[in-house]
Amino acid sequence: MRQAGRYLPEYRELRAKAPDFIAFCLNPEMAAEATLQPMRRFAFDAAIVFADILLIPKGLGQEVWFEAGEGPRLGPLPEMSVLRGQIEAAATRLSAVGETLSRVRAVLEPERALIGFAGAPWTVATYMIEGRSSDRTRARTFAFEKPEVLDELVEILVQATIHYLAMQARAGAQVLKLFESWAESLPEDVFERVVTRPHARIVAGLRAQGITAPVIGFPRGAGSLVEGYAKAAGVQAVALDVSASAEFGQRLQKDVTIQGALDPLLLRAGGPGLDRRVAQLLEQWSDGPYIFNLGHGILPDTPIAHVQQVLDRVTGWRGH
Amino acid sequence: MRQAGRYLPEYRELRAKAPDFIAFCLNPEMAAEATLQPMRRFAFDAAIVFADILLIPKGLGQEVWFEAGEGPRLGPLPEMSVLRGQIEAAATRLSAVGETLSRVRAVLEPERALIGFAGAPWTVATYMIEGRSSDRTRARTFAFEKPEVLDELVEILVQATIHYLAMQARAGAQVLKLFESWAESLPEDVFERVVTRPHARIVAGLRAQGITAPVIGFPRGAGSLVEGYAKAAGVQAVALDVSASAEFGQRLQKDVTIQGALDPLLLRAGGPGLDRRVAQLLEQWSDGPYIFNLGHGILPDTPIAHVQQVLDRVTGWRGH
Repeated sequence: MRQAGRYLPEYRELRAKAPDFIAFCLNPEMAAEATLQPMRRFAFDAAIVFADILLIPKGLGQEVWFEAGEGPRLGPLPEMSVLRGQIEAAATRLSAVGETLSRVRAVLEPERALIGFAGAPWTVATYMIEGRSSDRTRARTFAFEKPEVLDELVEILVQATIHYLAMQARAGAQVLKLFESWAESLPEDVFERVVTRPHARIVAGLRAQGITAPVIGFPRGAGSLVEGYAKAAGVQAVALDVSASAEFGQRLQKDVTIQGALDPLLLRAGGPGLDRRVAQLLEQWSDGPYIFNLGHGILPDTPIAHVQQVLDRVTGWRGH
Repeated sequence: MRQAGRYLPEYRELRAKAPDFIAFCLNPEMAAEATLQPMRRFAFDAAIVFADILLIPKGLGQEVWFEAGEGPRLGPLPEMSVLRGQIEAAATRLSAVGETLSRVRAVLEPERALIGFAGAPWTVATYMIEGRSSDRTRARTFAFEKPEVLDELVEILVQATIHYLAMQARAGAQVLKLFESWAESLPEDVFERVVTRPHARIVAGLRAQGITAPVIGFPRGAGSLVEGYAKAAGVQAVALDVSASAEFGQRLQKDVTIQGALDPLLLRAGGPGLDRRVAQLLEQWSDGPYIFNLGHGILPDTPIAHVQQVLDRVTGWRGH
């Protein structure tokens, strides 16, 4: 369950001690604590490192900060030549994330997995181009009007992501996840150019560095394009958003492990409808490889009891 | 090409004469002129009536207005019992749309088709619940927390839509389109409940009234769920958004005619990339039933020459 801490009082207490969000992510002691908090409360099979998808632009030297109640803000997009010179230094500047992983791995029970992650190149590029959360109109227009600039930016991000994720794997991450949070509204040819092929280059680059950790790709909102992605992106697992059909997931399971797709709004709502949907997801997908998870980030006002309710259903299902 | 007028100077001139947008839609003389403007400039095969997806709530008695530069605003959601009493009156209150269609049909060449449309029930319900454009969090939460209220609202909208579209068909619309603009981020069971089955009831209701016009459904953003929709919604054609894959469209063509999916951002950008994508769409889908169209509404700052460029490519393709 992603962004795991936001619904926990102990997380909000910890967060209050670190007014700057990026500094929080880059403080190994605090980030390890945020990673472990949900693991203490719940019998989750895996922890995901507490970090942010915008650490890579920060590592590459673009200014990144968070406006309270408004979300991320980024300074002007640096020249490509400047960014290109920062690719290896970026992972070094983000070594605090590696230290967070080492600390968590040292105390987490061996049978519970630890997941590292990065924002995927296209999604990170949209923030770098737009300077904030947006409908990505400027970034998508770049894909048509300045394709060579976008391709260069994506390639810089591919290289930086390889270094960053390899560093995470060496520090203790056993699974790596690529969050392509803004994969929606892309035509197939653009999607292949800025999502599928870059992800394949990241996986190949990790393998070339001797990193064997499985990679989970999450092209959120890509709809029918996820099918080609699952075949060509080189990832071992694909995370599905809330609107994946049962049949579609089953088709994907021939090529990859799937993950998802419980609606966080339903988790927050709770009740018998939540139980029914959890059973439906398990029923429809557990004849193939399936990791139970949400289809999007957990909402901060989710009652903690609903998380336990889901966990009980999942762990108790057919005597799992 | 939808919302056809917005990129034309003659449209902006006409629009300036009618500061209230709803009154503009309900003025047959002006709405007929707006419908015909793009038909005079371009050799399109079909015209779509100038109207708005929020006319049904207006017809049902909910307050609807447009804030300049901000979009639609709606008054409080009326009680279901009040709305239920307005179902047949709604179509009568919207009879101006029928008069618009009659006027257009009277002057449009017989070989060019005339399309009527309505906002589809779930999408209209999201506006009625949220009161404005939004991320539909409240409306989607309704689906989990107040399912019986949402089901009743959707059913009222199904009935109102049948009357409204039947009126449009009798007035001259030869094709009817259902705009489910906010079909994204719905789990499969909710999607079937608020989108697929309501659309099937609308089509069945139209047939029961003797209306034989083909119906195009446009469940925008529904991704892999569109496949089940195409089989069960009873529609004759499905409009695809920009992110439909070639293979996915081909699979749908076994059951329905498909329409779409050129990216309006690429239409605005123009250039050789636009020509290449138009050729690609025609190549990948024209072995089956395919209506060339955009995958989303046209942008107001689209150069007129780009529309002509696409039209030339489409009409000249393989000697079409």
